Formats: sequence, structure tokens, C-alpha cells
Amino acid sequence: MQKTIFIICDGLPDRPIAALGNKTPLEAAHTPNLDKLAVDGISGMMNLIGPGVRPGSDTAHLALFGYDPYVYYSGRGPFECLGIDMDIQPGDVCFRANVGTLDNGRLVDRRAGRIESTLPVVELLNGLEIDGVKFILKPGLSHRIGLIARGQGLSYKISDQDPHVVDVEGVNTVVALDDSPEAKFTAEVMNKFSQIAIDKLSQAQFNYERKAQGLVLANVVLFRGAGIFPTGLPTFTEKYHLKTAFVAGAPFYRGIAKFVGMDIISFSPDEGVTGLPDSNLENKLNKAIAVSQDYDLVFVHIKGADTLAEDGNYQGKVEFIEKIDRAIKPLAESQDFLVVLTADHTTSSKLKIHTADPVPLTIRGEGVRTDDLNNYSERECAKGRLGTIQGINLMPILVDLMGLAKLFGA
Amino acid sequence: MQKTIFIICDGLPDRPIAALGNKTPLEAAHTPNLDKLAVDGISGMMNLIGPGVRPGSDTAHLALFGYDPYVYYSGRGPFECLGIDMDIQPGDVCFRANVGTLDNGRLVDRRAGRIESTLPVVELLNGLEIDGVKFILKPGLSHRIGLIARGQGLSYKISDQDPHVVDVEGVNTVVALDDSPEAKFTAEVMNKFSQIAIDKLSQAQFNYERKAQGLVLANVVLFRGAGIFPTGLPTFTEKYHLKTAFVAGAPFYRGIAKFVGMDIISFSPDEGVTGLPDSNLENKLNKAIAVSQDYDLVFVHIKGADTLAEDGNYQGKVEFIEKIDRAIKPLAESQDFLVVLTADHTTSSKLKIHTADPVPLTIRGEGVRTDDLNNYSERECAKGRLGTIQGINLMPILVDLMGLAKLFGA
Repeated sequence: MQKTIFIICDGLPDRPIAALGNKTPLEAAHTPNLDKLAVDGISGMMNLIGPGVRPGSDTAHLALFGYDPYVYYSGRGPFECLGIDMDIQPGDVCFRANVGTLDNGRLVDRRAGRIESTLPVVELLNGLEIDGVKFILKPGLSHRIGLIARGQGLSYKISDQDPHVVDVEGVNTVVALDDSPEAKFTAEVMNKFSQIAIDKLSQAQFNYERKAQGLVLANVVLFRGAGIFPTGLPTFTEKYHLKTAFVAGAPFYRGIAKFVGMDIISFSPDEGVTGLPDSNLENKLNKAIAVSQDYDLVFVHIKGADTLAEDGNYQGKVEFIEKIDRAIKPLAESQDFLVVLTADHTTSSKLKIHTADPVPLTIRGEGVRTDDLNNYSERECAKGRLGTIQGINLMPILVDLMGLAKLFGA
Repeated sequence: MQKTIFIICDGLPDRPIAALGNKTPLEAAHTPNLDKLAVDGISGMMNLIGPGVRPGSDTAHLALFGYDPYVYYSGRGPFECLGIDMDIQPGDVCFRANVGTLDNGRLVDRRAGRIESTLPVVELLNGLEIDGVKFILKPGLSHRIGLIARGQGLSYKISDQDPHVVDVEGVNTVVALDDSPEAKFTAEVMNKFSQIAIDKLSQAQFNYERKAQGLVLANVVLFRGAGIFPTGLPTFTEKYHLKTAFVAGAPFYRGIAKFVGMDIISFSPDEGVTGLPDSNLENKLNKAIAVSQDYDLVFVHIKGADTLAEDGNYQGKVEFIEKIDRAIKPLAESQDFLVVLTADHTTSSKLKIHTADPVPLTIRGEGVRTDDLNNYSERECAKGRLGTIQGINLMPILVDLMGLAKLFGA
């Protein structure tokens, strides 16, 4: 069985851009290695969730892993918490949280001046108990915090307290999103937590120090994306019986991979794998190839193109795609691997958001029924012989290519 | 209305094979008549069950007939029993069974030396009653037996007693596959039947005679594929109001056709229609054309390509495909019929198993929107204008082509 390397180029596809001569960044970029994979493989298009459904990064990755996000997705929280190695227990409600700044009751900064560390905030609030619910906090990168509410009778069916915008009066009141007593109780507890956190932070010693230093205060915990770890979720290994590793720089994506029980490959700081546009992609790809010795399937997540598109920087996106191309050269030239090349969603550089446009998909390796494409791009792959598939179809197709799919019937 | 002849080439599609210059057997074969059908018709690809789902022959045929196998499929048993003209009643649990050989308690041969007839085994055990359950047996081809358990409160949710491999200690203990008392009871009764059959066969006169002749003993009945006749299954005629015949050499496929109530066309031994690679395909196709006088729709099942691929004999598969091509010439040259040319699944000659790769599909006849393909093959049909459909879509498409589909709405 060939080893499989599955490359997820986050937000790689785009829409045609007038300033690029009506090409997409992928079409405008010089990508001999991506193109070689398409020439040597079979291609098609993929709707991650369904036609016209805009995928989040989390729901898109669940679909890529073969998990129906309509069954298994509740909110972003668990991925954030898992991404920073928090321990989630059944019944926990998990949140993505930020430290922000209130000024005379108005929310003026959602990131408290991109505060370097949230450790003092976490130390003040971690372990707090309200109405039998325990709050567990852990610092994430910069202004970010992983937040878990642990107790009996909680529900993730609640609204965000984070207003998502600044220059508004205070934070949102959390409300129940269904009629259950659990949602009502959880909303009440979270509103209490919100107020208690504001009260405690406003009187905290470190905020007096920040004020003295002329820094904005870190006096509110904003939280959103309530979610749970779903009961009955099979691990990736239980589903596919493949030894699988996930290679990524950004914690959130590692969190999604941990959610389904994958092994996470980590990097030392001097390897320069950051999950940002400056990431050292050669090091990332070479690590993926190296660890494939010990795994059947290695996912590689490459973030930069999405970040640049969300900033509207289509020219930077073109250059980043060429950087991906150079890093992928060893895979394009080797015949040792089954290679999957695709994206988790389209990111429009013009709209600066994820869009639902289908993403190009190429599979190259032993046993594939090749087609006659000339390059890897949105419009070329749409001519490919795979046709258009859904995100959750891809893993079953791969497992079948490997000769490992279960027979239905006899 | 044109008469329709629907040709199912079992296991015809394959994956590219290095020794064939990276062609599939279908691509490597010289097939002017199959190609003419594709040139004159409309083509596409078909996932019998769904993308990445490996179809069994039984589930694939149900899908081809337009029956959702997730609704109507329980196990292989009923098709085996119907294929040899056993009478199935509601509540019966049906099995595919073999006569095998135990040697000092070890299973050494699952086919008792491919024993010529199981008649003595059947005569010894047919009519046996255990705990109110009656066992009905009938000889199939060679070592095969159709086995029915008839009684109150039985369930098909039980595991196989047949270990599927040789050189193991005895047979498997049947276990219930759900928590129902019916499954538990059925498992207990089947384990009793298993042991009683071993005891009776071990002391049977014919086995003493086999031993004296130096033949391996036929002293165990191996059974698997428990299944029922589902309640509420509409017949093919009820579903489509078409007078339909099924032409096949192999009993199992006739069993699937009987399952949905089709008329079965039989052959006399001198017609040479065997369901094996040596089958006389001209006689089979000519019979199909002849009986089409009396039917609206005639299915023709051609088995050989699958058998050869499961033996890894890709060169034999190429030759058999050319044999199919010659037999199909009258259909390719006549404009009198709506012709459907497809397969029930891909069989990889390299992996020697069914795979989930989509199968090529061509429809030729009056009213079809033709396309511009050059031949009938996996990679050419992937460019066809039918796109990619699911197995259960095909019958509705055909019925509509015939102008007989029901209007949804007004």
C-alpha cells in the first residue's frame, strides 16, 4: 500500500480577479509542481459541505476527515480548547475566548491591545465556580484563551457573549437558543461568569499596573463558539483503521485533528513552521515525508493563502501559492506516495471571506484513472474525471483507492 | 416504445494496469461494438451505491434495479436460495451454505474437495427441527447448499458460522448482532443446528464410503450471509409497470432478479450459457434479443470479467471483454433497441477485489442526447454528458427515456 500525503491548502482557491487579468491567484501563479500532480493524477471539484454552503474551517475539516458536520459539529470551542492541549470531558461546554478592553462600559478593543499573554487573567479566573459550574481557563496565543464550563446539565445551545465588533455598549447577554432548561441554565451561568470576570478583572492588580504603564486594560473575557465533544464520535482510527498524523502550524487546526484522535506532529520554534504566511513550508513538507515512515496517512495543513486572501492581498496570495509549489516539488517528483492536493474552502480576496465555490481536488498515485488536464486550478480541475464530489466522499474514495474499503453486501 | 436491453457486465471496469501500458483491460481490449454504442449514445459514470462505497454484487444489483440497498438489503442468503428456486416465506432466515471438511476438529477445506453434489448431505438434514425451527436445505452447484431456517421469532441479525478461512479450529460460534431476543434465539438455534449437522454427517454412511474411496469427508455445513425477504418490497413490475425478463447463467444473479419478481430466462445445458468465462455469450445475447419480443425490458447479466479479475487474470479479462464485444455486435448494429451498457462494480485485477471506482455507463437509443465520445471505457465515459449518477438513479432515467415516468406535480 502506498503511503498517502494529503495536503490541505487552506483558502487556496479564489474567484477571478480583474487586476490579475481575470485569473484567480492560483491561475496567475507559476506552479509547475502543483500542475504536474494534476497532469499525472485525476482531478475534480469538491463542495466541502454542499453546493452553496459556505464552510467554516472547522466544518470543512470535519468533512475532509469524513465526518458529517451536520452530525458532529456544535461550535468552534472544542477545537480551540483541544488545540492548546486542554482536557475535555463529556458534558463540558467549550468556548473560544479573548481578553478585551472595556472603557466606561463600552467595548473598545476585542484583543486588549493584542496583549502578549493572558496568563494573569487565567490565574485570576481559573477554577471559579458559579452555581455548581466550574470554569477552566488556559492561555492561548496572544489575547486568546481556551474556556471550559464544566458541570451538570449544561448545553451548548446558547448565543455568543462576544459582540464580534467594537464600539458597542458592553457585551452581549447570552441567551438560550432552544427551549431546554439546560440551555436556559447555561445562559444564566455564562452571564454570571461574564459579570464576575469583569468585576474581578477591573480590580486586579495587573490592570492597575497596565494603567500605570499606559497600556489598555484587560478587563473583560469575551467568549463565543460554544461547543461540546459529541457523544458517539468514532476516532479516525476506528473509522478507517489507518495510522494517521496531522502536520500543522496553527493550534486551531491541530485541535480539529485531535478532536478525531489523530496524532499531532509538532515543530520546534527553530523549524520556522508558524501557520502564518512566513511559515517554512519546506520544513513542513519534509517533516511530513519523514513521518510518513511511521504512518499510513499524513495530513499537511498549509494556512497562509487563506490569511492573505482574508486581508484582500491577492498579490501576496499569488506569491504564497508559488511558495507552496516549491515546497511540494519532492512530492510531485516522487512516485512513492499517493498524494491528495486540495483545500478546505475558497477564500475570496475581493470579499475577504470564505465562499462556497467548490475547491479543486487532485489525487495522484497508483491505481488512479488519470485524466488529461494541463494544470491544477479551479477552472481546469472542473474538467477533471472525478467530477464534483462532496467533502465527506473524499475519505471513502481514498480508503477504496488504498484497497481497504469495507464491502457493502457480498 | 423501443424495447430495452440492459447489459450488466459484472466487474468489467478496472484500474489502470502497468503491464497493460497503464490501460485498464477495457481500454486495452479491441472493442469496436462497445465503442460504437458509446459513439452513438450518451455516456457517464455511475457510483452504484455512493462515492467510495464498495458494492457487493447483490447490493449493486438492487441499486441497478432501482431499490435502495440501505432499505432492502439484509444479507446474501435470500438471493442464493431464490437462485436455486427455493420457496421463501415471510419470516424465513436464508443462508448461503457450503459443505466443508473438518479433520480432527480443524476446518481443512471449505468446499469438501469441491464435492460434486451435496445431495446426500441435504437428504440427511432437510426437514430437521430444533426448538420449533425447521431447517430446509437444497443442493446448489457443486459444494453449495441453500439453507432456510423457518419458524417463529427468528432474526437475520446474527454473525456467520462460516469462518471464511481454512486451517482454523472448528467453526465460528454464531452470535447475535443486536440486543433483540429474536437475534439471541436465532444464534442459539443456529449453533445447535451447526453441531447436530456435524454429529449427523460424521456418522453418515456416505462419509464412510468417501473415506474408503480416499475422498475428503463432507462433514460440516458452513453457513453465512443470513438475510430475509423484506416486508413491503414492491416488485419490479409494481415499481415500473414494465414486463421484464432477466437473462443470466449464474444462479445467484437469477436469485436477485427473482427477489424483485422478474421473469427468469433459463437455458438448456446444450446452449453453453454457464455464467463462467467459457459461457456462450452469442447464445445469451441472441436469447435476450429473441425474448424481447415478449418483454419491454430484458436484463442480460454477463459474469466472466469479474471472475477473471478476481483471479488477477487481467490478460484473460482483456480477452473476455473482446468476447463480450463480439456477442454484442447485433445490438450495436441494430437501431431497434434502447441499449444500456454498464457494470455492477469495478473489479481490480491487481487487488482481486471489488472496488468502489465508478463504472462507465452508456445509453444508446431513440431520444437520447448523444455526446462526442470515441469509445466505451472508464476514462472516456468520464467525459460523457450524463455526468456522474448514482446506481438508483438509472432506472428512473430509463423509465423517463421510455416516456413512462410519473409526473411529480402538475
